[in-house]
Amino acid sequence: MIDAIQPDLSLAASLFETLDRATRRGRGIVRDSYGDGEQFAHDLMRTAAQALGLEISVDAIGNLLMTLPGRDRSAPRIIMGSHLDSVPQGGNFDGAAGVVAGLSALSALRRERVLPECDLTVMAIRAEESAWFDVAYVGSGGAFGLLDPACLSIRRSDDGRTLESALRERGFDPEPIRERRALLDPAQIRAYLELHIEQGPTLVAKGLPAAIVTGIRGCKRFRNARVLGEYAHSGAVARPYRHDAVAATVALLHHLEGEWLRQEAAGADLVLTSGELFTDPTLHGPSKIAGETRFVLDLRSLSQETMDSVALEARAAAARIGDEYRVSIELGGTSDSPPAVMDERLRAALLRRLEQPFEMASGAGHDAAVFAKLGIPSAMIFVRNEHGSHNPEEAMSLQDFAVGTRALLGLLEEFPR
Amino acid sequence: MIDAIQPDLSLAASLFETLDRATRRGRGIVRDSYGDGEQFAHDLMRTAAQALGLEISVDAIGNLLMTLPGRDRSAPRIIMGSHLDSVPQGGNFDGAAGVVAGLSALSALRRERVLPECDLTVMAIRAEESAWFDVAYVGSGGAFGLLDPACLSIRRSDDGRTLESALRERGFDPEPIRERRALLDPAQIRAYLELHIEQGPTLVAKGLPAAIVTGIRGCKRFRNARVLGEYAHSGAVARPYRHDAVAATVALLHHLEGEWLRQEAAGADLVLTSGELFTDPTLHGPSKIAGETRFVLDLRSLSQETMDSVALEARAAAARIGDEYRVSIELGGTSDSPPAVMDERLRAALLRRLEQPFEMASGAGHDAAVFAKLGIPSAMIFVRNEHGSHNPEEAMSLQDFAVGTRALLGLLEEFPR
Repeated sequence: MIDAIQPDLSLAASLFETLDRATRRGRGIVRDSYGDGEQFAHDLMRTAAQALGLEISVDAIGNLLMTLPGRDRSAPRIIMGSHLDSVPQGGNFDGAAGVVAGLSALSALRRERVLPECDLTVMAIRAEESAWFDVAYVGSGGAFGLLDPACLSIRRSDDGRTLESALRERGFDPEPIRERRALLDPAQIRAYLELHIEQGPTLVAKGLPAAIVTGIRGCKRFRNARVLGEYAHSGAVARPYRHDAVAATVALLHHLEGEWLRQEAAGADLVLTSGELFTDPTLHGPSKIAGETRFVLDLRSLSQETMDSVALEARAAAARIGDEYRVSIELGGTSDSPPAVMDERLRAALLRRLEQPFEMASGAGHDAAVFAKLGIPSAMIFVRNEHGSHNPEEAMSLQDFAVGTRALLGLLEEFPR
Repeated sequence: MIDAIQPDLSLAASLFETLDRATRRGRGIVRDSYGDGEQFAHDLMRTAAQALGLEISVDAIGNLLMTLPGRDRSAPRIIMGSHLDSVPQGGNFDGAAGVVAGLSALSALRRERVLPECDLTVMAIRAEESAWFDVAYVGSGGAFGLLDPACLSIRRSDDGRTLESALRERGFDPEPIRERRALLDPAQIRAYLELHIEQGPTLVAKGLPAAIVTGIRGCKRFRNARVLGEYAHSGAVARPYRHDAVAATVALLHHLEGEWLRQEAAGADLVLTSGELFTDPTLHGPSKIAGETRFVLDLRSLSQETMDSVALEARAAAARIGDEYRVSIELGGTSDSPPAVMDERLRAALLRRLEQPFEMASGAGHDAAVFAKLGIPSAMIFVRNEHGSHNPEEAMSLQDFAVGTRALLGLLEEFPR
């Protein structure tokens, strides 16, 4: 399906280029949350929006809202958004692509003198990354009064300034966060749409320019799992008398990989990772049986039921394998974030706008999860990106960006009722 | 079989008690190699030997030889020995039991006025442990001119003195080590016999007081194995696109545990341990797929062939699993020490002296390995010991010690020709 209206790609190219030139520090991009890098991006988008004649507002915590007014200004609006901050030494596209896509779409509607039914707002969201302050979704969570006010005293990882002083230094107001006061009313938002680069290799591997996101995986993480055995001489203790923490850990992780394969075969969405695993460097040794391991077990799925079921299986396996290996496997508690399901109708409508329709889960979190969990119909478009994200080598082509942005624009033109 | 002559257990009890009283520092025993603790033990044994009327000599590097002269003084002698040093905060019996057993046996022969065919020498060996200076078997290796002279500049782990200065401070001479000059002639040694506490839990588990050692396991160690994958977001990368170093490491170690079980089922002697295993603490993270692991793989067996075959299988599995998991598994080189086989005739003769005959491998190294590798017929007796060795809780009963020492004494009385 070819849409009549094409997004403003020359605007997009110019915004990406200016962002890159102004916020690259050495090899990578530095758009620090509430810092000079993020602020440059906000100023740039604001200037572009003003040139397009959009209505501009900035909320108390610094989110920038750029609106093309609709026919019925009291009707719930559609927000297209993403964040403008980056991780330290990140890439040019993670976050920014969603804001640029929104402006490219509104520029096209403006050019074609389309009067939308409702307000269409591009929201440049603050501080999505947790790399600077150890809290994610400050902009979107804060806009809905969802943040723990204790976050205001979190210190920036490099210079030690608190989030509160970072807000004040930019002229923003920490009080709504402290009072858990919402700046946006979910009932006044018809939909939230976010275009974002894919952070994994799937679209590159499949040779597809873009995909529609089925949902944002939840996470159930055993952050402090450990196996307690007994240190002993590696040569002097026969197998039946060992209390080998490494052997038991291997047996457990091997079993869970099998469980992953079984879940996949049954059609479940799941990823399962142990990204930290270590014996104790002060006690281990090349000729010792290890008496302890510590590890992280990270389960992610679009389905809470799948995560619960795998966690249950992990606990059962830990008890069984602990007995078998004469060790104690303590998985400990989990930290949980529930999955965020994308809106079925919006997904279907977006999917129809792709020449090569493809759907996939998002494994990483996004601002869209905050909107979706409030019951706001939400959808995401992933754009192909080489080399993963959060690194200087992020590489999204303008052609692929155009494919995703055309789907976004097409949806705005024929928004499902 | 009841032997007419009984070992001198009251001497043994008194020596163990004095050693414990004089060299316990806090909870554990401290008999530092070439330090005051080891020297106290040498002085104690020398005094006891003098009281028994044995001939005393000390070689250039401090080994103490206590001899009951035989009928033919020019005939090759039988040496009973072990070491008198301990690890820091070690136990009272590791090493010392073998010297005490020898003196208990010679005391009994002296008491019964037995004139042996050949000289019977108890050798109190220096510095077997590598905990003080990072080199093992200084006394026995040095006695045969087998040490790398570079070991003289190794510094003591706590006070930084070199081995050379530690030797000189005790009045010994580093020159034979520097010149690789042997102080003992293997051709003049008819046999080497070593009683030692078992360092593992086998005899405790089996309810047996003593065992005869089949051999001392060799070791083939992959000291610097690693898996190189790619760091990535744990949620954003599906299984087929991962380069997960932990998953590949788990797959390899799981496969090798299976190989161990297959080898055991086929009757092979083998232990297989990964006692160090870790992701990179500067790069890993709870929501990251790990891009690297490092680990040690320690193979031990009485059979060089078994170790070679398992190492070959490990390399084949590493290549296959590396491909399967899209990572590079680099096992690296091995450090090798060959197995030391105990003398068949001596083993059989000793075994006949046990009421409950039982044979087992030694997983840890012992001075006996140095003698055996020179072609000297060697044998070892293990005595049951609670709680493993190299810790303050070593616990050998005098009854169990008597069982082992009676076997030793019985062998001396009817030495196989």
